[in-house]
Amino acid sequence: MDIEKIRKLLEDVRAGEKGIEDAVLELRRLPYDDLGFAKVDHHRRLRRGFPEVIYCPGKALEHIVEIMRNLSEKECNILATRAEPYVFEAVKKVLPDAEYHALARCIVINRDRRRRGLGKILIITAGTADLPVAEEAALTAELMGSSVDKLYDAGVAGIHRLLGNRDMLDEANVIVVVAGMEGALASVVGGLVRVPVIAVPTSVGYGANFQGLAPLLTMLNSCASGVAVVNIDNGFGAGYMAALINMTKEEALK
Amino acid sequence: MDIEKIRKLLEDVRAGEKGIEDAVLELRRLPYDDLGFAKVDHHRRLRRGFPEVIYCPGKALEHIVEIMRNLSEKECNILATRAEPYVFEAVKKVLPDAEYHALARCIVINRDRRRRGLGKILIITAGTADLPVAEEAALTAELMGSSVDKLYDAGVAGIHRLLGNRDMLDEANVIVVVAGMEGALASVVGGLVRVPVIAVPTSVGYGANFQGLAPLLTMLNSCASGVAVVNIDNGFGAGYMAALINMTKEEALK
Amino acid sequence: MDIEKIRKLLEDVRAGEKGIEDAVLELRRLPYDDLGFAKVDHHRRLRRGFPEVIYCPGKALEHIVEIMRNLSEKECNILATRAEPYVFEAVKKVLPDAEYHALARCIVINRDRRRRGLGKILIITAGTADLPVAEEAALTAELMGSSVDKLYDAGVAGIHRLLGNRDMLDEANVIVVVAGMEGALASVVGGLVRVPVIAVPTSVGYGANFQGLAPLLTMLNSCASGVAVVNIDNGFGAGYMAALINMTKEEALK
Amino acid sequence: MDIEKIRKLLEDVRAGEKGIEDAVLELRRLPYDDLGFAKVDHHRRLRRGFPEVIYCPGKALEHIVEIMRNLSEKECNILATRAEPYVFEAVKKVLPDAEYHALARCIVINRDRRRRGLGKILIITAGTADLPVAEEAALTAELMGSSVDKLYDAGVAGIHRLLGNRDMLDEANVIVVVAGMEGALASVVGGLVRVPVIAVPTSVGYGANFQGLAPLLTMLNSCASGVAVVNIDNGFGAGYMAALINMTKEEALK
Amino acid sequence: MDIEKIRKLLEDVRAGEKGIEDAVLELRRLPYDDLGFAKVDHHRRLRRGFPEVIYCPGKALEHIVEIMRNLSEKECNILATRAEPYVFEAVKKVLPDAEYHALARCIVINRDRRRRGLGKILIITAGTADLPVAEEAALTAELMGSSVDKLYDAGVAGIHRLLGNRDMLDEANVIVVVAGMEGALASVVGGLVRVPVIAVPTSVGYGANFQGLAPLLTMLNSCASGVAVVNIDNGFGAGYMAALINMTKEEALK
Amino acid sequence: MDIEKIRKLLEDVRAGEKGIEDAVLELRRLPYDDLGFAKVDHHRRLRRGFPEVIYCPGKALEHIVEIMRNLSEKECNILATRAEPYVFEAVKKVLPDAEYHALARCIVINRDRRRRGLGKILIITAGTADLPVAEEAALTAELMGSSVDKLYDAGVAGIHRLLGNRDMLDEANVIVVVAGMEGALASVVGGLVRVPVIAVPTSVGYGANFQGLAPLLTMLNSCASGVAVVNIDNGFGAGYMAALINMTKEEALK
Amino acid sequence: MDIEKIRKLLEDVRAGEKGIEDAVLELRRLPYDDLGFAKVDHHRRLRRGFPEVIYCPGKALEHIVEIMRNLSEKECNILATRAEPYVFEAVKKVLPDAEYHALARCIVINRDRRRRGLGKILIITAGTADLPVAEEAALTAELMGSSVDKLYDAGVAGIHRLLGNRDMLDEANVIVVVAGMEGALASVVGGLVRVPVIAVPTSVGYGANFQGLAPLLTMLNSCASGVAVVNIDNGFGAGYMAALINMTKEEALK
Amino acid sequence: MDIEKIRKLLEDVRAGEKGIEDAVLELRRLPYDDLGFAKVDHHRRLRRGFPEVIYCPGKALEHIVEIMRNLSEKECNILATRAEPYVFEAVKKVLPDAEYHALARCIVINRDRRRRGLGKILIITAGTADLPVAEEAALTAELMGSSVDKLYDAGVAGIHRLLGNRDMLDEANVIVVVAGMEGALASVVGGLVRVPVIAVPTSVGYGANFQGLAPLLTMLNSCASGVAVVNIDNGFGAGYMAALINMTKEEALK
Repeated sequence: MDIEKIRKLLEDVRAGEKGIEDAVLELRRLPYDDLGFAKVDHHRRLRRGFPEVIYCPGKALEHIVEIMRNLSEKECNILATRAEPYVFEAVKKVLPDAEYHALARCIVINRDRRRRGLGKILIITAGTADLPVAEEAALTAELMGSSVDKLYDAGVAGIHRLLGNRDMLDEANVIVVVAGMEGALASVVGGLVRVPVIAVPTSVGYGANFQGLAPLLTMLNSCASGVAVVNIDNGFGAGYMAALINMTKEEALK
Repeated sequence: MDIEKIRKLLEDVRAGEKGIEDAVLELRRLPYDDLGFAKVDHHRRLRRGFPEVIYCPGKALEHIVEIMRNLSEKECNILATRAEPYVFEAVKKVLPDAEYHALARCIVINRDRRRRGLGKILIITAGTADLPVAEEAALTAELMGSSVDKLYDAGVAGIHRLLGNRDMLDEANVIVVVAGMEGALASVVGGLVRVPVIAVPTSVGYGANFQGLAPLLTMLNSCASGVAVVNIDNGFGAGYMAALINMTKEEALK
Repeated sequence: MDIEKIRKLLEDVRAGEKGIEDAVLELRRLPYDDLGFAKVDHHRRLRRGFPEVIYCPGKALEHIVEIMRNLSEKECNILATRAEPYVFEAVKKVLPDAEYHALARCIVINRDRRRRGLGKILIITAGTADLPVAEEAALTAELMGSSVDKLYDAGVAGIHRLLGNRDMLDEANVIVVVAGMEGALASVVGGLVRVPVIAVPTSVGYGANFQGLAPLLTMLNSCASGVAVVNIDNGFGAGYMAALINMTKEEALK
Repeated sequence: MDIEKIRKLLEDVRAGEKGIEDAVLELRRLPYDDLGFAKVDHHRRLRRGFPEVIYCPGKALEHIVEIMRNLSEKECNILATRAEPYVFEAVKKVLPDAEYHALARCIVINRDRRRRGLGKILIITAGTADLPVAEEAALTAELMGSSVDKLYDAGVAGIHRLLGNRDMLDEANVIVVVAGMEGALASVVGGLVRVPVIAVPTSVGYGANFQGLAPLLTMLNSCASGVAVVNIDNGFGAGYMAALINMTKEEALK
Repeated sequence: MDIEKIRKLLEDVRAGEKGIEDAVLELRRLPYDDLGFAKVDHHRRLRRGFPEVIYCPGKALEHIVEIMRNLSEKECNILATRAEPYVFEAVKKVLPDAEYHALARCIVINRDRRRRGLGKILIITAGTADLPVAEEAALTAELMGSSVDKLYDAGVAGIHRLLGNRDMLDEANVIVVVAGMEGALASVVGGLVRVPVIAVPTSVGYGANFQGLAPLLTMLNSCASGVAVVNIDNGFGAGYMAALINMTKEEALK
Repeated sequence: MDIEKIRKLLEDVRAGEKGIEDAVLELRRLPYDDLGFAKVDHHRRLRRGFPEVIYCPGKALEHIVEIMRNLSEKECNILATRAEPYVFEAVKKVLPDAEYHALARCIVINRDRRRRGLGKILIITAGTADLPVAEEAALTAELMGSSVDKLYDAGVAGIHRLLGNRDMLDEANVIVVVAGMEGALASVVGGLVRVPVIAVPTSVGYGANFQGLAPLLTMLNSCASGVAVVNIDNGFGAGYMAALINMTKEEALK
Repeated sequence: MDIEKIRKLLEDVRAGEKGIEDAVLELRRLPYDDLGFAKVDHHRRLRRGFPEVIYCPGKALEHIVEIMRNLSEKECNILATRAEPYVFEAVKKVLPDAEYHALARCIVINRDRRRRGLGKILIITAGTADLPVAEEAALTAELMGSSVDKLYDAGVAGIHRLLGNRDMLDEANVIVVVAGMEGALASVVGGLVRVPVIAVPTSVGYGANFQGLAPLLTMLNSCASGVAVVNIDNGFGAGYMAALINMTKEEALK
Repeated sequence: MDIEKIRKLLEDVRAGEKGIEDAVLELRRLPYDDLGFAKVDHHRRLRRGFPEVIYCPGKALEHIVEIMRNLSEKECNILATRAEPYVFEAVKKVLPDAEYHALARCIVINRDRRRRGLGKILIITAGTADLPVAEEAALTAELMGSSVDKLYDAGVAGIHRLLGNRDMLDEANVIVVVAGMEGALASVVGGLVRVPVIAVPTSVGYGANFQGLAPLLTMLNSCASGVAVVNIDNGFGAGYMAALINMTKEEALK
C-alpha cells in the first residue's frame, strides 16, 4: 500500500538483501501494536494525519490507561473522549502531562502546538446546554492544529444574536453548528455563508426530541446546501471533520 | 347540553304540553341527518362555528355528492378537501354554485362572504412546492371569514426574503407557516413575532424527510415558543385553527 | 429592523450628530447581554411580549443563577422551568422574591400581576399523573397575565366527568388539554367547543405509550379540527401558546 | 392430540386390528390436503370452529381457485378476503354459489346460515372511509353465525352521534370499533360499556397517521380497559374475534 | 343516559315534586366524587361492571391513599396496580384489609369473592421472566370473579411443554398469553384452540426486543385468527379483558 | 493476499525475470474487469466459492446484459435476481443457455450441475404468498450445488402441518424458514431441530407487518437459539448462506 | 415425535406389557421437570444438542439457583448468561464446580470438554468495547465443543489490522463478527471469505447508534452474501449458531 | 449585512445624495425577484458562491421554466435537479443552451467553465445502481468549478476493487462516497485517507434498507472519523459540499 516502501522492499529482494519469507512477512504487516485486547494503530497518523483517538465508554480502565501509555510513546498529541474524572486520575499517574477538560469530558496530551490550516473554525451553539458537545469539538480541532472561534447561545429563537455576529461567520473558514431542540440553526447558518458547515445534533430538548433524532433529521434535510452532518452529540467527529477541511492535504501529514 | 333547550323542554313537560316519552326522545336526540353510510352533523355549526367539512379520500363518489347536497340545504359555506377533478364534475351537476380550486384540491360553496376576526392571517411557505398545502389553508380560513395575506417561497436558505418582509409579519394577527424539507422556518418566524404561529409540516423533500416526519419533529421541538403544530400536509387544519384564533368566541357563532 | 430606530439613526447621521462608524455599529447591534456562555436576550420582551425563559436541564447551576440575576435587572416576570429544588435554593439566595412551585418544577418571579387577555384559559387533564405538566402550563399562562381555570382528571374512560362540566368548556376562551396514555381527550374536547384547543401529550402510560409518542400521534391526527399540538410533556409551551392566543397583539406588548 | 382417537387407535393395535407401522403413520398424520403449493387444513374447523380462510394478496389466481374448490368439498361456509373482482370471476366459474361483496372485497360461500351466539355484535365506525374494513368484519362475523348491528360514521368529532345511540351500545354483546385518523373512538366506547371491545385501526388519514400507526398506538394505549386490538385494516380478524367471544366454546364446534 | 332515572326525574317535574333548576342540575350531574386532583368515578361499576382501578406511577402518595379510601367507602373490590411496597405501607394504615401481592406489584381489597363467568381463564407465559405481568393479569381476573388456571414457562423453544398440556388449553374459556422475546407463543396457542386469545407482549429480551415492540408486532400480525392484543406489559388490561369475555353481560353488572 | 502468488512473484523478481515496476503493478492489481459502469469481480469465485451475482433493480438493461455476458466468459453458473421478464428477453439473445424462473424472478445459467455439500437443505414457508422468496432461495442453493427439499404452507396457524412432517426436518442439514405475517414459524422450527436455521422475513401481511419489519423483529428475537436472520424478502441471501453452511470450506472452492 | 420410542411403546401395548391409559399418558408427556415457575426442558439436549440455557435478567435469584441445580443433575455442561456477580455467589454455594467469567457475565459448568466440529470458529471484534459480547460468544461455542480463535479490535477504521490477519480468516470454518458503531466490519469480512459469517450488532456508539439499531440494519443489508444476523448484543446466540454450523448433525447429538 | 454597502449608503445620506426614505428602503431590500409563486434569490451567488438551484419535484412546469429564465438573465451557470425529460423539453424552448443529463436527471446551463479549487474531487460508488446519485453529485461539483474523478462499483463485497485503486484515493482532495445496501463503503474509505469524506446514502437495496435509512445510520455512525453525511439520494448536496470544501473561501466568490 505504501508504494515507496513496497518498491524499496522489492529492490532489497532483488539485491538479495532481504529473504523472500521476510519480504512476505513485511508485505503483510503494517505498523500496529497488538495489546491482545486492542490493536493500537500507530500507522494512523501516517495514513490519516492524526493518531488513533480513544473513545472511553465500555472500555476497562486498565485498557484505556495502557492504550494511552502505548500511544504516548510514539505520538505527540493524544485525545481520549467521554472520559470520566476517575479515568483521568488513573491516566495522570502514568502520563503526568495529561490534562483534563471537565466540560468537554476529554483527556488531552498536547505536545505539538503548531498551527495548521487555511483559516479559522467557528463553533456556534444554539443554547447553553449544547456547550459540552461544542467544547469537545473545539478541543479536537485545536489539538489537530486549527484556530477556533466560539459563538455560543445564538439560537434562532433570538436570531439577532446570530445576525449581529455576522462578521464572525464571514471570517470563518469552516463552521461547526451544535444544536439540540429542533436544530434549525444549521439551516439558517448554512443559508448565510460561503464555507462548509458541519452540523452536530444534540440530545437536548423535550420529549419529541427523541434523544437527538429531531435535530438529526432537521440537519440532514437542510434546505440550505453546504451542510453535512455527523452523529448525535458527536463533538469530536465534528471537530475532526472541520479540522480536516481547514487544512490542505499536505498539511494533514506534516 | 343546550341548557336553554333543556329548560324549555322541562317547562313544556311541567305544563303538560309535552309527553314524557317525547321528552325522553328529544333529550337523547341531537340534530344530525342519518344517511346510513354517514351521519351529517348539522349541529356542528351551532356547536363549533363551522359546518362539517368533507375529507374526500376513501369515500365513494355518490356518498360525497349526497353529503354535500344534504349539507347545502342547511348551510351557507361548504368545503370538501382533497377532491379530485372528477369529484367536482359530479358535485357541480347537483350544486351549480360549487367552485373548484385546483391547486388547493378543494371544492367550495361560498355563499356567506362576511368578514370576521380581529385581524389578518398571514400564510408563509418555505418553498414553491408547499403551495398546494398553503392554498388549502388560505381557502379554509377565508371561507370561515378571515382575511388572508400570503408570503410564499421565503425559506431560511435565503433568510432576507423573510426578514425583508418583516412588516407583513408585524401586521398579522395569526401566522401559518407551511414548510417541508427540514421545516426550520417555523422556529425562525416564531422567534420574530408576538402572535401565535401554526406550523404545518409538508412531505416535500429528499429521502430523510420521511414523508414529512422530519419537519414535523422540527416544528414540535421549536426552540421559539408560541408555535403549535398540525398534521403533515394538513393545510385545512391549519387554516381552521388560524381562523378560530383570529375570531372571538362570540364571532365564532355568528 | 426597528424602522423608527433606523430612521432616527439616519437623521442623526445626516445631522452629523452620529459618526458613520458608530452608526454601522448600532445598525448591527441588538440588545442582548453577552455573558460568554449565554446571550441574554433582553430584546425578547419587546419583540415577543415575554422575556426569555430558562429551561434548566443541562445548564450549569452557576449559569442558571447568573442568567436569572441578569434578567431580573430588566424584567418583571421571570420563569425557569424544569428546575430541581437545589436550583431554587441557589437562586433564592440572590433573588429573594423568587418562588418555587414544586409540582410544576418551576421557579417564578412574579412582580407584574396585571391581567391581560380576552377571556379565560381552561386547562384539562385526562388523569392525575398529568398534573405536573398541567401545572407548568397554568403557571406560565398566569405569569403572562391570563386567568386560568382547571378541570383535572376528566379522561374519556369516564366521559361524564367531562360532559358534566360542559359549562367550564363553554366559558373558556382557549383550552389546553393535557393527556397521556392514548390522549383521546383532545379530540373529544375539540369536537365539543368553538375555541382553539392546544393539546399536550404526556409520557404517562404503559409500554406502547413510547414516552409520549402515542398521544402525540393521536393529537396530531385529531378528527376534530381546531386542535394544534406542542411537544411531549411541554406544559410551558402550551401555556405560552394559550396565553398568546388569549391576548390581542396589542396587549402582548403592554 | 385427539385423545379419543389415540385411545381408539391403541385399542385397535392391542386387538391386532391395526399394524404398528400403520399406527405410527396415523399418529403422525392429521387431516389436511397437500396441494403442493398449499396444505389445506381440513382439521381447522374441528379444532378452531371455522374452516381455513383464504387471504388472497400474493397468491396466484389458480392457487386461490384450487384452494376454494378443495375447501368447498368438505366445508359449508367459506371466506376469501381482499379478493379483487377478477378473482371472483374465476372462482364463480367453478363454484356457482359463491357471492362477491364489493365494498368488503370478499368472496363468500354461505351454505349454513344457522345463528349461534349469546347476543349481537355491534360494529361502529368513526367515519365513512372506514366502511370497507367494517364490512369485512361484519361479513366474517355473520358467516360464523353471529347477528350484527351497524353504527357507521359516529366519530368523536360529533360525539352526540354516538351518545344518541347509546341503546345500540347497551344491546350489544361484543363491540367492534373501526377507526382511522387518531382512533379515539375506541377509548370513548370502551369507557361507556360493560362488554368487550375489539378495536381495529385503519390507515385512513393525513400524513402522521403513518398508514394506521397512529390509531394503532391510540387503541393499544386506551385509558378505558376492556379494549383489545387487532392488526391495521384487519376487519376479518376483528369479526372473527368478536364472533368467537360471542359464542360459547361448545357452540364453536357445532 | 340512565333512561329510568331520566324518566323518574321527568315524572317528578311533571308532578311538581322537583323544581326545574334542580332538574337541570341533576340532568347534568353524574355520580363522581371530586377530590380536586381527581374525580373518583363511582359510576364506573354501574356502567362497566368494575370500579375504577388506580394506576399508581406518577401519582402522589397522598393522592393514591385518598382515592383508595374514597373508593373503599362505596366499593367491595379495589385494585391498585404498579404499586411500590412503600405505597402499600401507607395504604395499609387507613385500609387494614388491603393486601399486597409483591410479584404482581398490586394492592387489592377483595371483599366480594363470588365467582362469575362461563368458565376458566388460562394464563400462559413463555418464560419465567414474564411472571410479574402474568400475575397482575391473574389477580385482576380473580378480583372480577373469574377462575384462573396458570401454565407458566411454556414457550415455543420447547413446544412439548405446551402441547403436553393440551388439556389445559381445551378446558379454558378464554386464554391470556404473556410473552416477551419474539412473542411467537400467541400465534401457536391461537392456532390450537377455539376460544378467544388475549395476547400481552412483555419487554423481556435482548436489544431488538426494543422494550416490547417486537412481541407487540408479532402478536398484532398473528397468522392465527382469534387473537387480540393489549399494551406492552399490561397484565391488568389482559386480565380485565379476559374476565369481561368470560362473563355474560348480565353477570357483569351483578 | 494470495500468498503463493506473492511468493512466486517475489521469486521472479529475485530471479530478475520480472521488473520491479511490473511487480508493483501486479501486487496492486486483482482480477476484475472494469467495464466503466461496473467492475466485474472475476476473483470472487476464487475467494468466495461463487461468482458475483447480479441484483437487477436500478441497473440499466444494457449494463445487466453486458455484465452477464462478461461473467459468462469465465464462469459456469451465473445468477441474476429480481429480473423482470423483459430483462430475460434481452439476456436470452446474447446468452442462449440462460433460463428464466418466473416465480423466483431469476435468470440462471446452470452449466456445472455437480452436487456439493454434507446433506440437504430444507426450505419451509409459512404460507403460499411466501413462495417467490422461497423459490429464489431454492434456486440459489441448487446453483451452488446443494440438494433442496421443500415444505410449503406449514405455518403455525395449523401446526400439525409442520409437526406431521417432522421427518423432513430431521433429515435436513440446514433449514431455511421463509415467513411473513408475524414470522413465528422460525422460532418453532428452531426449537425442534439440531441444525442451523436461516430465517427470512417477508413483506406479506396486514398493515402492522410494516413491509416485513414485524417478522424481521420476531426472527431476531427468536427464543430458540440456532436461528440467524437475513434481510426482508432476501431469498437469495438465505439460499447462499444455507449452501455455504451445507458445504465444507474445501468444497466451497471446488 | 421420537419414532423409535413410539414404535417401542406400541409394541409394548400390543404385547400387553403396557396399559392403554399408561400409553396415552406417555404419548403426551415429554421429559421436562415442572418446578411450577419453570418447566426445565430436559429433552432439549436430546432434541437440539445442548441443554436449556438460563437467561438471568428478570428471573428471581432463587429461581435461577433452582433451575441450575435441577439441570446439573442430568446435564454435563450448563450455561447461565447475563449473570450478575451476586447470582454467581448464590449458585456457587449449591454447585461448587460452577465458574464465573466476569467479562462475559456468564456462569458455566463445564464437565464435558470433548471437542466437536469440523474446524475452528474465529471471533472478530471491531473494537475493545465489544469484548463482553465477544467473550459470551466464545464461551458458548467452547462449551458446545468448538475450538475458538479471537481477533479483537480489528475494525475498518484501520483495515490493515484485519487484512494483516488474513490467514486467521482463511483458517476459520465459521466466523463471528461482533461490531457496534456502524457495524461495517461484517460486510468487509463477508466479502473476503468462503465460510459462513454470523454478525452480532452491539449497542456501542454515539446517539444515532440507537442502542444497536444502526449496526443491526447494516448487517442485515450486507452487500456481501454469506452473512446472517442475530440479535443486538446477543453473543450467546452467535456462539450457539456458530457452534451448530461447525459441527455435523451427528456430532450435535453426541 | 454587506458592510461596505451600508457604509457607502450612510456616506451618501450624510452627503445628502440619498434621501432618508430611500435609504430606509434600501436597507431593508435585498436583491431577489418576486415572481409571486417564488422569490428568485439573486443574492445567493454573492452570499454563497453559487446561484439558487431548482429542485423540480412538486413545482409546476411553468414555474420551473419561469424561474430558470429569470435566473439565466443574471447568472452564468444554472442547475435544475430531479428534472423529468418533459421539463427539459419545455426549458429548452426558452433557453436553447440548456443541456440534459438523463442519468443524473439534471438540466444544466454551463456558461462559465473556469476551474476553481485546490484539487480533485473523487466520487466513489458501491454499486452500479448508485450511478444516478453519483452523476448528480459529479455534475454539481463540475458546474461549481471543481475537477471530478470517478471510481464506480467499488463496494466492499470485493474490496480489492477499492484497494487496487488506492492511488485515486490518494490523489483526491475531497471524496464523495455514494452507497446503498448497508453503506459500509464510507467507513472503509474514511479509514484509508487523510481528506474529508462526504457520504451519501442511497435507497438501493432489499427491504430492511428501509428506503435508505440503513446506509444513513451506517454513515452517521462511521467508526472512521472525517466522514460527514448528507440526505438520502442527495447527490446534489454532496457535490455542493465537496465543491465548497475543495475551494478557498475567496475562490467561492470569484
